[in-house]
Amino acid sequence: MNKYRILVDAMGGDNAPDEILKGVVMAYEKLDKKSVELSVVGDEKSIERKLNKISRRAAKNIHIIHASEVISADESPAKAVIKKQDSSIVRGVTLVGTKEYDVFISAGSTGALLAAGHLILGEVRGLTRPALGVMYPLICQNKAALLLDAGANANCKEENLLDFAKMGSIYMEEVMGVTSPKVGLVNNGAESNKGNNLTKATFKLLKDSKLNFIGNIEARDFPHEDVDVIVADGFTGNIILKLSEGMAIGLLKEIKRKFLEGNIAKLAALALKSKLIGLKDELDYREYGAAPILGLKGGVLKMHGSSDASAVCKSIEKAIPFVENKVVERLAKAMAENIGELDE
Amino acid sequence: MNKYRILVDAMGGDNAPDEILKGVVMAYEKLDKKSVELSVVGDEKSIERKLNKISRRAAKNIHIIHASEVISADESPAKAVIKKQDSSIVRGVTLVGTKEYDVFISAGSTGALLAAGHLILGEVRGLTRPALGVMYPLICQNKAALLLDAGANANCKEENLLDFAKMGSIYMEEVMGVTSPKVGLVNNGAESNKGNNLTKATFKLLKDSKLNFIGNIEARDFPHEDVDVIVADGFTGNIILKLSEGMAIGLLKEIKRKFLEGNIAKLAALALKSKLIGLKDELDYREYGAAPILGLKGGVLKMHGSSDASAVCKSIEKAIPFVENKVVERLAKAMAENIGELDE
Repeated sequence: MNKYRILVDAMGGDNAPDEILKGVVMAYEKLDKKSVELSVVGDEKSIERKLNKISRRAAKNIHIIHASEVISADESPAKAVIKKQDSSIVRGVTLVGTKEYDVFISAGSTGALLAAGHLILGEVRGLTRPALGVMYPLICQNKAALLLDAGANANCKEENLLDFAKMGSIYMEEVMGVTSPKVGLVNNGAESNKGNNLTKATFKLLKDSKLNFIGNIEARDFPHEDVDVIVADGFTGNIILKLSEGMAIGLLKEIKRKFLEGNIAKLAALALKSKLIGLKDELDYREYGAAPILGLKGGVLKMHGSSDASAVCKSIEKAIPFVENKVVERLAKAMAENIGELDE
Repeated sequence: MNKYRILVDAMGGDNAPDEILKGVVMAYEKLDKKSVELSVVGDEKSIERKLNKISRRAAKNIHIIHASEVISADESPAKAVIKKQDSSIVRGVTLVGTKEYDVFISAGSTGALLAAGHLILGEVRGLTRPALGVMYPLICQNKAALLLDAGANANCKEENLLDFAKMGSIYMEEVMGVTSPKVGLVNNGAESNKGNNLTKATFKLLKDSKLNFIGNIEARDFPHEDVDVIVADGFTGNIILKLSEGMAIGLLKEIKRKFLEGNIAKLAALALKSKLIGLKDELDYREYGAAPILGLKGGVLKMHGSSDASAVCKSIEKAIPFVENKVVERLAKAMAENIGELDE
């Protein structure tokens, strides 16, 4: 049996490299060494020293690929990718392109990952644009839907949104095992005549497609909507993701603050603490692992920028079924087969 | 002293006319009859019968203006306004235009209110587009910011967003008494190079303006952001408003469900019930009353579509300072004075 070869960007994200490396070691200790090979890419000397501090045994077994440069969040992504050929992101994506690794996981700049993906790997046949797909928890439904694009394309056309809907449907069907996934379009009203120019045009394309399009969904209805694929342009998708995160954190914080006013309340709050923590975990989309950039000819997963060690570990664990299920290949195949068919 | 003349659309919204009329009667009973004159517009016979059922005394004192037609949410707004000249919305806005009423409050179609406002009242001098301004609670800041546009303009250009920022600043300064209001632009990243085409162009305009522009704000930071005016295009603003509402309702529902599992938890939850209700009220932007359509040459307030009697009552109460403070006139004056000045 071949090993699943997972490469992690040690240099990307707010907590790099320390939390990333801790997370990699955590994953190393948890995972089956016979089936998974873990490597990191970044500044070799610094990584080696840090890994040895965390665990000598893990340090021996985690392979380090040297990259002397780092692409930061405030750089122009395309320029940075072209200029910094020895950056961890360019190295990582390249090693996926050459099939030396099955998947590259990074908490670095989404823009740079996309630019590298576009320039080095390219898009699957028949696709206008790749998209970042994030599993979005539907609070009252006890399930999650794939939200895409969650931030790869700030400016979109209706053809792109149609592609996102197709990729989302294929992903949910092929990978998550959902039969005939329900596709909803994020809009400013449920009625079919609502929307801005983009969503109005997209509505028509989706209605005429062979997808299981259930119509517009209003953001108000997300928590209790029975939907599998949530389609939006990358700007809107990003706002949805971040606002949901901010609201959940903010609300739980406020509840905690309120509950700690007064002694009886304090006692009562103590009794409910575990339930609140449980809810927090359910709401945390990091629980679902890193988000795939769907549509690239290679496995690239984007972790949350503020990922800590446990989020990194979770992302590595969840990357295994991504590789195991051959998501990249199956998506490419289905997209190629569906060209024309889904459009009719 | 002149009376404040308030006109309410009896026919608009999900719960019209029953909840609207109940709310009007509630307000009638609360308000000072010497300073406020309350009227409703809609189907006279049906309203008269219903009002009499609720309160004979109130029915005698609430004036009814007959309108035989209703504009529904799924009609094309501009067409409906032109075609249905005897609709409650067209009648209501017209009576504000003729100065027979100081303000018109409706839970009906935002699009129709805007179209009627545009055709009948017109925009204040120097303005490209009016906007719906909603007081948005910043959960962890114990204050609210004016979010605009909250849904009037689904398609916007950067000039429109600059106008929204100006109107928002004037409103917060003149009406809410905030000195040098902080203006933030909703964006998909905090860095100044982030955004889609629209927000990138808007960023430049805001940066070059004389407004107190604090830069991009990410949706994740809304709960704890110290900002007074939140600027977005009407599509994005609408998503923000509805998602916040949906998240708050969904989360509190989930918390309630979780807290009711198990007996100790049930007892504890009981002790905390009042605190949760308090939080729910704080989060409810209806507490701030109806949302003004800023930039029209007349007072038009939009209530939440699902307003119940108490929301209607609250909207009427909050309309009084709107009239008292001469918001429409002061905004028009300040916009005219600031033409050029703020742009430089």
